[in-house]
Amino acid sequence: MQDGLLLVVSGPSGAGKSTVCSRLLLEMPRMNLSVSVTTRCPRSAEKEGDSYFFRTHDQFEEMVEKDAFLEYARVYDNCYGTPKEYVFDQIAQGKDVLLEIEMQGALQVKRRFPQGVFIFVVPPTLSDLKHRIIKRGSETPESLMRRFSNAYHELSYLDEYHYLVVNDSVESAVEKIKAIIVAERCRMDRNAKLRKKLLDEGADTWA
Amino acid sequence: MQDGLLLVVSGPSGAGKSTVCSRLLLEMPRMNLSVSVTTRCPRSAEKEGDSYFFRTHDQFEEMVEKDAFLEYARVYDNCYGTPKEYVFDQIAQGKDVLLEIEMQGALQVKRRFPQGVFIFVVPPTLSDLKHRIIKRGSETPESLMRRFSNAYHELSYLDEYHYLVVNDSVESAVEKIKAIIVAERCRMDRNAKLRKKLLDEGADTWA
Repeated sequence: MQDGLLLVVSGPSGAGKSTVCSRLLLEMPRMNLSVSVTTRCPRSAEKEGDSYFFRTHDQFEEMVEKDAFLEYARVYDNCYGTPKEYVFDQIAQGKDVLLEIEMQGALQVKRRFPQGVFIFVVPPTLSDLKHRIIKRGSETPESLMRRFSNAYHELSYLDEYHYLVVNDSVESAVEKIKAIIVAERCRMDRNAKLRKKLLDEGADTWA
Repeated sequence: MQDGLLLVVSGPSGAGKSTVCSRLLLEMPRMNLSVSVTTRCPRSAEKEGDSYFFRTHDQFEEMVEKDAFLEYARVYDNCYGTPKEYVFDQIAQGKDVLLEIEMQGALQVKRRFPQGVFIFVVPPTLSDLKHRIIKRGSETPESLMRRFSNAYHELSYLDEYHYLVVNDSVESAVEKIKAIIVAERCRMDRNAKLRKKLLDEGADTWA
């Protein structure tokens, strides 16, 4: 059986990547969202392993020391990280894992797991992006400026990503990512087992 | 506008790649089959530029000297080659070009145009391949042995290809190649123009 894929999806705030990722998960029942480890307290309805694995600060630090994360970050007083074990278990079972994450985290993942499929989602135009962020209405002029400046800045660092997906519509963006998944499964470097199988069979058929 | 893709499809004799390629051309009206230059004489119904460009031996040699071919070969007394000009013109118009060719030719193309998309089509098992070739009934035991030995030999040299497509059914092989086309169009290195457009727009939106 072929290993599953780790899909790492980033994109500027307002590019619509969350909507695209939710739709993708709906349409691909064998794909799982990556579950993060966090030091923050569980909210009332949150169950362990569902949206998060809850750990103490000490446990988290121990995982960092054991190099147990694909990426991790401190956000205010809490830590968040993507555990290797969960991702690698899923992949070994042939299941694809989706990790929606900002660029800094994606670049950490890339260093530790370059076999991942790195996808950057962009809006058709940057003025679209501006309108989408403004429409949310939740931004101050300063935070709007900062978000927009970040988005612009990130565009200069895209070479680490394998694919650029234009989110002209949710449907078309999802179709493109589904095509990327099919294509990646066909990539020569992901098919060493199949090649070996064919060669072994060939040797038998000869005999 | 994005450049078209050059799809180079190889695979062992009997893997069904011709059927797959014909179906692909039917389903993708904007994709053209690459037209070869040949020194052989046109047959009665053959029109210049339709299935071949017909040239004299001298003209062919001149093209070789001018490095005008993506690949070329001598087969018995005649020469065949894939002219760069035709392929590059199509690609510049945003049209994809399909080149179905054996491994030696594909490797020549790869050296001259590594931006091509190199796909190797295989049967699900090598014994399938044996059965398909035998079913054709047109082979002597010796030629059968040679074909099969070639197929086996080629499996050891697949690293030059980007994709391995298992032809378990024509439909599924065509779907995989169509997904590869969609994915390749999203590849970061094929979207330099889009990235520049976004950056330029971003700079304007800032101002």
